[in-house]
Amino acid sequence: MTESVQVSRIRTYFGGVPDADCPSRVVLDHVMSKWGVLVLVALADRTLRWGELRRAVRGVSEKMLAQTLRTLEADGLVHREARPVIPPHVEYRLTGLGDQLVARLEPLMEWLSVHAGAIVDGTARQSAVPAAAPYPV
Amino acid sequence: MTESVQVSRIRTYFGGVPDADCPSRVVLDHVMSKWGVLVLVALADRTLRWGELRRAVRGVSEKMLAQTLRTLEADGLVHREARPVIPPHVEYRLTGLGDQLVARLEPLMEWLSVHAGAIVDGTARQSAVPAAAPYPV
Repeated sequence: MTESVQVSRIRTYFGGVPDADCPSRVVLDHVMSKWGVLVLVALADRTLRWGELRRAVRGVSEKMLAQTLRTLEADGLVHREARPVIPPHVEYRLTGLGDQLVARLEPLMEWLSVHAGAIVDGTARQSAVPAAAPYPV
Repeated sequence: MTESVQVSRIRTYFGGVPDADCPSRVVLDHVMSKWGVLVLVALADRTLRWGELRRAVRGVSEKMLAQTLRTLEADGLVHREARPVIPPHVEYRLTGLGDQLVARLEPLMEWLSVHAGAIVDGTARQSAVPAAAPYPV
């Protein structure tokens, strides 16, 4: 089963779930914060000014957007550039690393676009069947 | 550029970033909560009892684990079964849907295992270069 092999690989990397002090978990917290993934997807393949980014990520407050961008910039995932034009403005775009990360988020976002409706309205749960073999008693 | 095509596909699904009232965003919040993704990965390909799951997801409190499992169960991603054995115990495993979702998390977790170290220690930022073309002025 192909998916089992992939799962074993994840476990090999992390020795199970990433440990609390493991860098993977720190970055996962940054990227998967309420707004991290949305900001990254909004910047996929394009450069946006502050106001454009705020409109693209609907519902984000100025404070949360600023905080999310600071974290992603410190991580080297987003590049910030103050452009000395008139009027001056600040632009944000993905770094090469951020671009790689967004490519890894794509299968997840695509899957969500298909299944999230049924998950939220409860029909997914009603038709849910266990995937794994029963626990050996 | 292959990655650009994938990004366009995400944008086509969501019309940009998923809207605040879009099911994808609701489920994203559940899955990408601080513990959601770790619980899902811990359950990949295996059934675990409560105590085993708590040990696998190091650092999670009982309260947060219970809350995360309730959400994932309500979403139809995790199956909970109380086994009438002596002593009685409760088991958790992925549903078929949860199994599909974990397969989509795999490329992300694999990428993190390679790059998270450099991101956290700051070397990723030092060598960061913008990916996208400059904003047209």
